[in-house]
Amino acid sequence: MIDNFTFYNPTKIVFGTGTIAKINKLIPHKAKVMVLYGGGSIKKNGVYEQVMAALKKREVLEFGGIEANPDYDTLLQAVKKIQKKGVNFLLAVGGGSVIDGVKFIALAALYPGKDPWDILAGDGLSQATEALPFGTVLTLPATGSEMNSNAVISRRSIQEKLSFGSDLVFPRFSILDPETTYSLPQKQVRNGLVDAFVHVIEQYLTYPVGALVQDRQAEAILMALMDAAPAALRMPPDYNARANYMWAATCALNHTLSRGVPEDWATHNIGHELTALYGLDHAETLAAVLPWLLWYKRKQKQAKLLQYGYRVLGIKTQKYADRIDQTIEATSAFFHSLGMPTTLTAYGIDPEEAAQKVQARMESHQWTFGEHNDITGKDAAEILRLSR
Amino acid sequence: MIDNFTFYNPTKIVFGTGTIAKINKLIPHKAKVMVLYGGGSIKKNGVYEQVMAALKKREVLEFGGIEANPDYDTLLQAVKKIQKKGVNFLLAVGGGSVIDGVKFIALAALYPGKDPWDILAGDGLSQATEALPFGTVLTLPATGSEMNSNAVISRRSIQEKLSFGSDLVFPRFSILDPETTYSLPQKQVRNGLVDAFVHVIEQYLTYPVGALVQDRQAEAILMALMDAAPAALRMPPDYNARANYMWAATCALNHTLSRGVPEDWATHNIGHELTALYGLDHAETLAAVLPWLLWYKRKQKQAKLLQYGYRVLGIKTQKYADRIDQTIEATSAFFHSLGMPTTLTAYGIDPEEAAQKVQARMESHQWTFGEHNDITGKDAAEILRLSR
Repeated sequence: MIDNFTFYNPTKIVFGTGTIAKINKLIPHKAKVMVLYGGGSIKKNGVYEQVMAALKKREVLEFGGIEANPDYDTLLQAVKKIQKKGVNFLLAVGGGSVIDGVKFIALAALYPGKDPWDILAGDGLSQATEALPFGTVLTLPATGSEMNSNAVISRRSIQEKLSFGSDLVFPRFSILDPETTYSLPQKQVRNGLVDAFVHVIEQYLTYPVGALVQDRQAEAILMALMDAAPAALRMPPDYNARANYMWAATCALNHTLSRGVPEDWATHNIGHELTALYGLDHAETLAAVLPWLLWYKRKQKQAKLLQYGYRVLGIKTQKYADRIDQTIEATSAFFHSLGMPTTLTAYGIDPEEAAQKVQARMESHQWTFGEHNDITGKDAAEILRLSR
Repeated sequence: MIDNFTFYNPTKIVFGTGTIAKINKLIPHKAKVMVLYGGGSIKKNGVYEQVMAALKKREVLEFGGIEANPDYDTLLQAVKKIQKKGVNFLLAVGGGSVIDGVKFIALAALYPGKDPWDILAGDGLSQATEALPFGTVLTLPATGSEMNSNAVISRRSIQEKLSFGSDLVFPRFSILDPETTYSLPQKQVRNGLVDAFVHVIEQYLTYPVGALVQDRQAEAILMALMDAAPAALRMPPDYNARANYMWAATCALNHTLSRGVPEDWATHNIGHELTALYGLDHAETLAAVLPWLLWYKRKQKQAKLLQYGYRVLGIKTQKYADRIDQTIEATSAFFHSLGMPTTLTAYGIDPEEAAQKVQARMESHQWTFGEHNDITGKDAAEILRLSR
């Protein structure tokens, strides 16, 4: 049976060419604004200039240097500056890391408890009743953070990486101008496409509960991503191709697809360990895990694998076992077509070593993953051993 | 090229069995509430009792009798009562007519101008800066009003029917409990399925602009509606079938599908005239117009007709003209499978008479319809003459 669900997503999306010019009208007239960004790529591709030009009549504070996988200690520096200067509106300019970081900053700046680390590691979220309002200017479509209420924060000093979600941290608005992606290295576009694709898979490829709408909506985004991918990677960039990639990545994780249906996320969870151990890009870990996880779990996932193969990939082979093999192979082939390897060995990683390390870490935390919560450390190790 | 667009939809959806019990927590603690409804079917099917039980600790005012195609004069009576009693939260319990009516009431109750008719017929909407907050309990899935910002209001005394849309009138929440549909007459379920289906067609079957995501999302809802329809009509009612019908109807018109793409709405516009002239149910007018409009416009709509036939209906006949014929026939066959005739003659209406009357009315108002705005009164007449 389809589960009961709540859907709520108040973020205003302003999509299209030239839309950065609209941010001044989207921010309250009297707000004291801080612009937050990452390593400075926005100063090279013209986005920083566009943002500042749009805000030219305002006094604007800045905070740069939010790193990929935003770090708790960095974010606390921003919180201090915000509190000291009386900033009351934040503008995140960047990709998922900057936006995730700003979500945490927005909550931490108004946090009534003692230690904002409790927002992530304790019961701080239940104490928080408000967050600073913020908007975003997205420059790297991938994580969907621009239209959801979740964030992942790292704390390198104690080797932790934790996530949170709260209705308080939906962006007030997000500017999605496909032209901001024109200067992205091809590798980041490839990563964004794979990340978005696997986001949908995690919310879809579990077991059927009869949710016809949610299934079709997930299949819609998967097909749109597959259709959009070749053109999105081509240079010089094409507007429609980048627009499709950008909007698909947002729609892949804006809470629509997961309503009332089971979710997996084991590929992400195992992938996070690989990033921590070997520094692989997030999307690379997904490509190196997903096909092998699907194969390892092909009996439990049979009904949805057959549906995905038939509807999304057009694989209609009569014998179920063959159809499932071909479906998983076609998924790998899609990643390969983007220039994305799908084995640990292709990334220079020994599968056996990775298997043992991930198993040890999962067992020490007593973690289990997947829609049935039955993927143990031993299972994860078996999955990783297949990735060769 | 994909058009620039804004997407904003802050309505909170609370979906599932037993969710009416949650309304008390969704309405501000100190609010003075008025419950508004239609002809009283909610008193026969248990929905009224569930609503009142959920609100039992509050003093609640009531306003019943909002008619199908809600009437301006009726709605103004509600406005008077609201203003007199200091009501500050509205709860619409019913289908699209009740919800549309409450959207107007919410605006009119706080309207700063002299005559609230200006909201519909003049520039009143630009003067309105706030509306009373309201929630909905949906009992008839069809119009999508529970998750959008539009409404259609009739004023029988001067034979007018006008629509408006405003970000001020998104429902704060909408309760979607599939079990509230169990007592619906089969004819209303049939109508709701057709209405939702044609809503999607109006936003999709125009001409391609390269919007891969929006196209796939529209196709997803069309396929979900076609999959859900037979089971949704079966008695005794099945929970999942009704849940799929309900959620598909909401997703058909919640602003998602129309972002950045052309829209048609000629079938609706011509259909409204047929309801005014002959009292046909709204969905019946859509079924009696759409197939003939598609055939009449088959050259302009060729690319999308081929895509719709191929992707949604699985029609892959090689010769384009044949494929289009079969695509339109399959659309009619879908309506027939729901027990819905697709010709004016089947409804006992003379196509020639309807053609002449609609043409006269369109020409007197100088109306033209369609994604190219090129369907004149003469074209509408030709379309209606085909409906025999």
